[in-house]
Amino acid sequence: METSTETGFSYAEGGVTAPLGFLAAGVSAGIKKSGKRDVALLVAEESCPAAAVYTLNTMAAAPVQVTREHMSSGIARAAVVNAGNANACTGSSGMADARAMAQATADALGCDAREVAVASTGVIGMPMPMDLVLAGIAEAASELNSTAGNAAAEAIMTTDTFLKEVAITVEVEDVRYTVGGMAKGSGMIMPNMATMLAFVTTDAPLTSEACAVALRSAVDVTFNRVTVDSDTSTNDMCLLMASGAAGGDSIGVGDAGFAVIGGAIRAVCGELARMIVRDGEGATKFIEVTVRGAASDGDARDAAMSIANSPLFKTAIFGGDANWGRVAMAVGKSSARVDPDRLEIVFAGITTCKDGTAVPFDEDAAALALAANEIEVTADLHLGDGTATVWTCDLSYEYVRINGEYRS
Amino acid sequence: METSTETGFSYAEGGVTAPLGFLAAGVSAGIKKSGKRDVALLVAEESCPAAAVYTLNTMAAAPVQVTREHMSSGIARAAVVNAGNANACTGSSGMADARAMAQATADALGCDAREVAVASTGVIGMPMPMDLVLAGIAEAASELNSTAGNAAAEAIMTTDTFLKEVAITVEVEDVRYTVGGMAKGSGMIMPNMATMLAFVTTDAPLTSEACAVALRSAVDVTFNRVTVDSDTSTNDMCLLMASGAAGGDSIGVGDAGFAVIGGAIRAVCGELARMIVRDGEGATKFIEVTVRGAASDGDARDAAMSIANSPLFKTAIFGGDANWGRVAMAVGKSSARVDPDRLEIVFAGITTCKDGTAVPFDEDAAALALAANEIEVTADLHLGDGTATVWTCDLSYEYVRINGEYRS
Repeated sequence: METSTETGFSYAEGGVTAPLGFLAAGVSAGIKKSGKRDVALLVAEESCPAAAVYTLNTMAAAPVQVTREHMSSGIARAAVVNAGNANACTGSSGMADARAMAQATADALGCDAREVAVASTGVIGMPMPMDLVLAGIAEAASELNSTAGNAAAEAIMTTDTFLKEVAITVEVEDVRYTVGGMAKGSGMIMPNMATMLAFVTTDAPLTSEACAVALRSAVDVTFNRVTVDSDTSTNDMCLLMASGAAGGDSIGVGDAGFAVIGGAIRAVCGELARMIVRDGEGATKFIEVTVRGAASDGDARDAAMSIANSPLFKTAIFGGDANWGRVAMAVGKSSARVDPDRLEIVFAGITTCKDGTAVPFDEDAAALALAANEIEVTADLHLGDGTATVWTCDLSYEYVRINGEYRS
Repeated sequence: METSTETGFSYAEGGVTAPLGFLAAGVSAGIKKSGKRDVALLVAEESCPAAAVYTLNTMAAAPVQVTREHMSSGIARAAVVNAGNANACTGSSGMADARAMAQATADALGCDAREVAVASTGVIGMPMPMDLVLAGIAEAASELNSTAGNAAAEAIMTTDTFLKEVAITVEVEDVRYTVGGMAKGSGMIMPNMATMLAFVTTDAPLTSEACAVALRSAVDVTFNRVTVDSDTSTNDMCLLMASGAAGGDSIGVGDAGFAVIGGAIRAVCGELARMIVRDGEGATKFIEVTVRGAASDGDARDAAMSIANSPLFKTAIFGGDANWGRVAMAVGKSSARVDPDRLEIVFAGITTCKDGTAVPFDEDAAALALAANEIEVTADLHLGDGTATVWTCDLSYEYVRINGEYRS
């Protein structure tokens, strides 16, 4: 996809119900002790092409396993999601519970259970309170409407402090298409192939194959490029559904509109991924780490992830310290090829290291630059053309408090 | 080495000067702003067999590069160490400074500079204050004596809150040999082939090859099995010197005494490694993580390191929470082969997970067990015979405070 396909985007109101052909609901079923919304339904008015990517954690939760099986056909009618209980490490009863969630949703909608994706997020290792969950699904099914994307986005939150949704419109041959999305996630975030939970909808008439290709290429440069704490969840999942309700000819991978719609999907995934980092547990700063001049794009990604996951780097940003030595350390401990005498580091706009050694800089100016909410750090290896950008947040007292107290 | 070679050890007073044939000194040269000791010399009375292992960080500091070159002969007379400045990311002037430190030491002792190991620890990317360093070396050389191991151990500390030294004696064919050691380190600790800084001495007549083999096998199961924060320093180094001053026949790799002396070296390295974890930045708990039943020892090590490096696991321990779900998550995100239905987790003596699902346990008993200063966590994969133990500490507010304020 060319960058030029990203021009001409317009942001729209709403999230997953912004595209035509989708209904949603979010209700309080009593799974969260707080009484907040905790069961969401996302439903296409008719069965439609879909694709999903999942966590690579080998302890993948029951809903991930069930959804992987159900979505293999490339067709979906609905997604059912609960927050407050992850249904992970729950054995065969957890599998039965995930299947029962799909079946209850299918019964309410009059479709096949294999057309239902199931997602759960919350505490690991606790049995699902199925009476509450099933009552919640029934209630949500009775409340489905085309403006409730917001309620659904609220119902999938756990330690999130703000609701994450976005919608973008594009035009292909005089037809206006919308791509909408919602996501949740704030801790246990270093997605590997997907993020905590994200749902992307579009009214473009993508084929199943086009859904799979567009989602994979979008996730690789968005959700797979963010890290809060280097921990990969057991429940990560990202689902794309394409209702085709906006009309127009079917769009396959080779077709003209594919790049435009794919670009919009990538933009929606990027916005959601960055929202997850901005809401990183305890985060006070949003950090964009770019490595360039690497021997390969893979080297650049490894080095950028090594920086973004370094607790010493993250605490330095929290402390407002232009501590470029920790960037050098993190580059050096990564698997990237490095010539120590060529390393250049630009820290919040200030060149702090060149040719592998210190460049004198104004500490006051650095302190001022580091007081900003968004910090850019760039390491140039001066070896080749490899480039990668990842997004992360700082490591604060609050991260320790949240995770010393919350049982996830 | 058999476990039986570890029986019959006796602990002795002191550290690197406990073995015969070694002198040391630790002086205040003014490199640390606090005025504390910051230059150490460790000197064998005569040139002797030696071996060293170094960080694999590709941004290895100048002293690491110089020492790697000097120690390639397998012969050493002395080590010169400064704290307060890491001489890392300092380019060609840093290399010249490290060489000048070796030369000044050699001049004071009347030996070849290539017999001098150089080590530095402290802030990255600052030029070395060579006038202070050289004056410190001269002063230290004038104060060398056989009881100053303690002063030397003090002079290599940075954020360490206690001094780390240990000595062990063993007997081989009626000759009593001593192995002594000192180490420093508390943050930027996930050694890869060596630790922050550690110096081990023995008066056993090991050959150079025996030194290299004994050190490598000791480091692999000690310093390479501890992690404080997953960050691998640019300056890690572990040096072994064997004076032979206790007498007896030369001991090579195949000789009878090798296993006994090697076992003592491993025990000294193990004690020092665990001291580094106990002094982990902000640590309130010492954690021993064991993975067994893995498909291979390598799988066991990967899974154990994944647990020990998980910020979510470490904050749970800080919060006194038997949060076994985070152990399951960390096992699952590692590269180890896992059957989710076989995982068993024992958390501080309490079985919390069996066959991959929750086992009901008494939360009050768990809270009591987790109030201890030392916590054992075991994950049994029930797949094979692979086993590994690693040591780590919890992640506390204090880690964030220390590293938000300290420029390393």
